[in-house]
Amino acid sequence: MSRAHVVVALDVGGTGMKCALVRPDGSTLHTERHPTDAGRGPDAVVDTILEVAEGLAGKARADGLDPVALGIAVPGVVDSARGVAVWSANAGFRDVPLRDLAVARLGLPTALGHDVRVGGLAEARLGAGRGTGHVLFVAIGTGIAAAHVVAGSAAVGAHGAAGELGHILVRPDGPRCGCGRPGCLEAVSSAAAIARRYAELAGASASAAEVAQRAADGEPTADRVWREAIEGLADGLASAQALFDVERVVIGGGLAQAGPLLFEPLRAALRERMTFHREPALAAAALGDEAGCLGAALLALDAIDLDNWRH
Amino acid sequence: MSRAHVVVALDVGGTGMKCALVRPDGSTLHTERHPTDAGRGPDAVVDTILEVAEGLAGKARADGLDPVALGIAVPGVVDSARGVAVWSANAGFRDVPLRDLAVARLGLPTALGHDVRVGGLAEARLGAGRGTGHVLFVAIGTGIAAAHVVAGSAAVGAHGAAGELGHILVRPDGPRCGCGRPGCLEAVSSAAAIARRYAELAGASASAAEVAQRAADGEPTADRVWREAIEGLADGLASAQALFDVERVVIGGGLAQAGPLLFEPLRAALRERMTFHREPALAAAALGDEAGCLGAALLALDAIDLDNWRH
Repeated sequence: MSRAHVVVALDVGGTGMKCALVRPDGSTLHTERHPTDAGRGPDAVVDTILEVAEGLAGKARADGLDPVALGIAVPGVVDSARGVAVWSANAGFRDVPLRDLAVARLGLPTALGHDVRVGGLAEARLGAGRGTGHVLFVAIGTGIAAAHVVAGSAAVGAHGAAGELGHILVRPDGPRCGCGRPGCLEAVSSAAAIARRYAELAGASASAAEVAQRAADGEPTADRVWREAIEGLADGLASAQALFDVERVVIGGGLAQAGPLLFEPLRAALRERMTFHREPALAAAALGDEAGCLGAALLALDAIDLDNWRH
Repeated sequence: MSRAHVVVALDVGGTGMKCALVRPDGSTLHTERHPTDAGRGPDAVVDTILEVAEGLAGKARADGLDPVALGIAVPGVVDSARGVAVWSANAGFRDVPLRDLAVARLGLPTALGHDVRVGGLAEARLGAGRGTGHVLFVAIGTGIAAAHVVAGSAAVGAHGAAGELGHILVRPDGPRCGCGRPGCLEAVSSAAAIARRYAELAGASASAAEVAQRAADGEPTADRVWREAIEGLADGLASAQALFDVERVVIGGGLAQAGPLLFEPLRAALRERMTFHREPALAAAALGDEAGCLGAALLALDAIDLDNWRH
């Protein structure tokens, strides 16, 4: 690929879209942000996605670049093979054939991916997992989701639903999860769960980041809530390690911003749980909120390489 | 490959070795069983393995067949890429370069695999998972282990230790596992755990199969023990499904012999736990204790195809 080639990449979230022009080597030439306004319904969101993508392709051409592919990351359940956004509570998608719609509108080879899986792809290949063959990328924010990346490829599952680390059982007697089951990891250790638990025990509201800081400052309730969350997370990661046997666990999402307040006790709690397993290295995500965009671009580049985008 | 070609396959367990001559299409021409006598130490066990393999290759030639490869399955931690039996409590192995030793002795391309992973391979390709792209094979006996097979290839992990389903957490307040941690699936739902729990509650000894039958006959203690084990197993499988998103879960090992006494309540308990996940089909293993041998043969055939046995 010549240096003038570029990939149009979009990472569509419930509130905003991160967009970029990305070179084949993974470097970013240009970024844009647009509101998603998911409340307008899926048709309007799809229109905006295609418009923004078209605008970026146009900008690339105006800058003397050659847009060769389009990569789109969306949340929820995503069938990458068919290019369909199967389901997303945040974006309102129900069986939207986003890849075909994009190909029809832009005429570019298009790949559709899951936001966390492509984020994991980017972290594994360009970020904190670089040089590592087996990576588990874990995004912890309102929810918890993961991507298992082996040899630069993220596991998708039979129905586009692999990597739901937030919904493995860690506390059978624990709080009920949004999914309806009790004791899911997400109900114990997500940023939202930490804030909820603190409000419950302290009778005052605080974000997960504030709880982490208050715990460090010696506030007993915050300390208890933070420790419970980390114990739960260590249990979840130990179960995942028993199944996946990775070299490195890369943690991203809002909770990773807590830095050493998270990583130091988590590393100790995880080590305590390693019996026969090999302890994975624990690293903070390196690409920040660009990971989704970069991963969407990588997915699109892979699709061109493999020539499997034609359908 | 011509019809006269055949693979020499060995499945080495702690007490016995199942051995076979297997055709490239997966059909078995000849089987033998030999004692492992692991108590003699790893050197003697390795000698027996190589002797038996040589004997089988010789028999193949005497029968006018052409032995083209050797496949060996062993328990424990196995580094298939390097062909090393890293660790096995049952067979006494510690970093045994079994592949190189076999190549030196027999002069045949040799593949070394993990017993449960190659069993999963065989079930996925020739047995109860046939025609299914994403399979989780679960072996339940004294312990619990699994193999995640996608597109006919079993996940190995970064250190040859993937698939340790027996050591995911299901009951934080539950019995201590042999690995040292409390509440592992294996400590709750393995055949050994069921027998142990029954002895504890009933003050009388019974095998897991007997517990299943007594539960069906309405004995309250057996019913309770059997139900607890199935609830734990359903929790473990639901967590695995959240991570893997497979189409089919194939259950083998001693416990699968309980048939409908296991599968009917397990299917119901698993269904209850499916919220956003897609429910996997649940099937009994079809190849019985031949799975390991067939899988070892498949692994050897794959190695020839990929020409990656040379090192």
